[in-house]
Amino acid sequence: MFRTVLIANRGEIALRVARTCRELGLRVAAVYSTEDRDSAVVRFADQAVCVGPGPARHSYLYLPAIMEAARQTGADAVHPGYGFLSEQADFAEACEAAGLTFVGPPAGVIDQLGDKSTARAAMAEAGLPLLPGTIEPVADAEAVAKVAADIGYPVIVKAVAGGGGRGMQVVNDPDDLPRQYREIRSTAQSLFGDDRVYVERYLPAARHVEVQVLCDRHGNGLHLGQRDCSVQRRRQKIIEESPAPGLPPELVEQMGSAAVRGLLAAGYVGAGTVEFLVDEQQRFYFMEVNCRIQVEHPVTEMTHGIDIVREQLRIAAGERIAATQEELSARGWAIECRINAEDPARDFMPTPGMLTELTFPGGPFVRVDTAAFAGGRISAAYDPLLAKIAVWAPDRPQAIARMRRALSELSVEGPGVSTNRDFLTTALDHPLFVAGTHDTSLVDRLTDSQPREER
Amino acid sequence: MFRTVLIANRGEIALRVARTCRELGLRVAAVYSTEDRDSAVVRFADQAVCVGPGPARHSYLYLPAIMEAARQTGADAVHPGYGFLSEQADFAEACEAAGLTFVGPPAGVIDQLGDKSTARAAMAEAGLPLLPGTIEPVADAEAVAKVAADIGYPVIVKAVAGGGGRGMQVVNDPDDLPRQYREIRSTAQSLFGDDRVYVERYLPAARHVEVQVLCDRHGNGLHLGQRDCSVQRRRQKIIEESPAPGLPPELVEQMGSAAVRGLLAAGYVGAGTVEFLVDEQQRFYFMEVNCRIQVEHPVTEMTHGIDIVREQLRIAAGERIAATQEELSARGWAIECRINAEDPARDFMPTPGMLTELTFPGGPFVRVDTAAFAGGRISAAYDPLLAKIAVWAPDRPQAIARMRRALSELSVEGPGVSTNRDFLTTALDHPLFVAGTHDTSLVDRLTDSQPREER
Repeated sequence: MFRTVLIANRGEIALRVARTCRELGLRVAAVYSTEDRDSAVVRFADQAVCVGPGPARHSYLYLPAIMEAARQTGADAVHPGYGFLSEQADFAEACEAAGLTFVGPPAGVIDQLGDKSTARAAMAEAGLPLLPGTIEPVADAEAVAKVAADIGYPVIVKAVAGGGGRGMQVVNDPDDLPRQYREIRSTAQSLFGDDRVYVERYLPAARHVEVQVLCDRHGNGLHLGQRDCSVQRRRQKIIEESPAPGLPPELVEQMGSAAVRGLLAAGYVGAGTVEFLVDEQQRFYFMEVNCRIQVEHPVTEMTHGIDIVREQLRIAAGERIAATQEELSARGWAIECRINAEDPARDFMPTPGMLTELTFPGGPFVRVDTAAFAGGRISAAYDPLLAKIAVWAPDRPQAIARMRRALSELSVEGPGVSTNRDFLTTALDHPLFVAGTHDTSLVDRLTDSQPREER
Repeated sequence: MFRTVLIANRGEIALRVARTCRELGLRVAAVYSTEDRDSAVVRFADQAVCVGPGPARHSYLYLPAIMEAARQTGADAVHPGYGFLSEQADFAEACEAAGLTFVGPPAGVIDQLGDKSTARAAMAEAGLPLLPGTIEPVADAEAVAKVAADIGYPVIVKAVAGGGGRGMQVVNDPDDLPRQYREIRSTAQSLFGDDRVYVERYLPAARHVEVQVLCDRHGNGLHLGQRDCSVQRRRQKIIEESPAPGLPPELVEQMGSAAVRGLLAAGYVGAGTVEFLVDEQQRFYFMEVNCRIQVEHPVTEMTHGIDIVREQLRIAAGERIAATQEELSARGWAIECRINAEDPARDFMPTPGMLTELTFPGGPFVRVDTAAFAGGRISAAYDPLLAKIAVWAPDRPQAIARMRRALSELSVEGPGVSTNRDFLTTALDHPLFVAGTHDTSLVDRLTDSQPREER
């Protein structure tokens, strides 16, 4: 195993990774921006290095500063968390070149799977079903129009370099296509420095179901079941659960083995997630691979009794996956809610600010992952994720009841700060969610049904 | 099910019970003393009634005030928690007379099992092994001397009405016996209003192992495995775990079925715990029955995935136990540490006071049960329990590592307030605890080995 792990991230995930490192007896080296000087992980870590000013591009995304922090702290491994540099092949490569273990897949795999076009090609070759669309990037608006006419509207135009809900545009009407095509290319260029796009059929009422996979360096792979992440606002997940409700067992089995097959074929190492869409006819389609720990990993940990970060570190150290697929067993139901500092009534606009009072839920089968504390602040420089609240129960109705209870205990106070707590409760109460038959349109239904004065 | 549950308790257990009531859709009625006006459960509850001034005998132990609170709040059930009135047959009887469901066994069962003498007789009849000693109370010091000469020193003289570590006296030397006998009778009289005592062989190096049992009103009973509670200071548990380490499977099986057999024979209803001592030869002896939820119930909940308070309420409402013994399965290992506001260096003297800053651990597989909050206070009027921290892991070494990590995150600040956190960490690190071969003498070993200046 390693001696010192540099955690190249911030917020709750940095603390989450640090906790497991501590449990494994590893020294924790944290990085922080000037904005995060007093953060929870800085206090928790054995050592912490400032990597630059607030904006992420000058600190958490600034590769030379991160590599220098690794050198200074004598780290022998680097955990990237999620977001920031976690899916940059350059970062994995730089670690390798510096003799550090990158806790994630090899640079070449990140490269291949991070590019939606080559990822689609690789997964198609491994026999995973794709949505009708293009594998190669499309050259111009006319080419898109041709594909769209072929597969039928609505279509979705996605950045080849996109992912995590960013860099995509639904096209409902052929007349809007030229303008929307220009827009998405320009967005893709500014977000990812890569304006290539591809086209897929758009499923307005699909479910987002993903499979958590672990692969070791010895060619072993297995999955830790499904997560349903269909409750999304602005294409960002806000409620996730495991298992996915209402899927026929044979579909569960097919998706699980497809995901493992796909990642093993790609030479994947570590924890990765294969995201699928499931349509109303219960057919599934490959969407993308996330080459890192997911925000929503706690629900899988709770049902499977496995610390996924621990598995990441063990695998990165060259250890074998300890169990076989048959030996794994899931128990009960877990749900996670992302508590964001944002205002659902104003299109989920972030509401950063000082936190004067904070009360988190506790008690049986409730897990809180947060780096927030009273007296600290939610910075406008970063994602407004304030906490993740996850609950477990023997079955889904009990898990929903427990989450409602947990949310009712949450209290966040601070000038100008509001949260999506009540919105989450409303979502949990929606008859479609209660029935487990909701899809990615649930949030639109909720926001559309609110009277105008409240929006 | 019920409509409104009155929680006749305070602190973390009142909040714990309230949480499950809320999840079941039941109205929560809390009681509070003037001392607890701003407590967490008061804020949580749908309704709260003041039952008197600070000292428990004027409020939480004052039956007429509690019964009046039940009337005022329109409660149809009463949950007694642990301590206070929870094991008073009078209370169960008064509830019954007032048409309220008492969430616990019938008054007659509490009466029989609360009296150590009749409890020993009942369990002996059900075939449970007892330590050598008397079943009937002993009349005078001479009778004790005779029994002691018979079974051999050391002996322990225990109050018939005692329990939970209170009202007992170890006698090592025949010469001390007359004085110690007088003392324990007078203590028993002042603590319980009943000066009857009995005698048992004393096992200086035994393990405290208890079995969690559930019995419904339909004659069904099952157990939820063992808990080892051998780490005790002043006969009060401070670290508990489930399962109990190092017990041979056949002993586990024998103790489990003996506990269920004993409680079913006694006509038990609800959640109850049968406490045993296990000697160095791995023989087990019945010690006592606790007719209520235990402080340490979370470790069983974590391994079994069962909400025990929910089961208590379901059983009280007349529902059947949903599973059979064979259908139950435990997973992994759970450990709980009781965080007390006390000073281990001064014989665990309570350190009440205002809490100015509080940070509790979080993240994977960590559970915190507490009613404490920054700005609140630990009152000298009550037990100094500040929080219970429980962790789960796939195995015992990982659970210990996780607990050490969780304790390292705990921070409690307040003028004059100290906690047993570091003492708990030292206990977790002790080679005997790490090996799982410790017994009830562990804390003495730790305190004796501290240099005098530190005590």
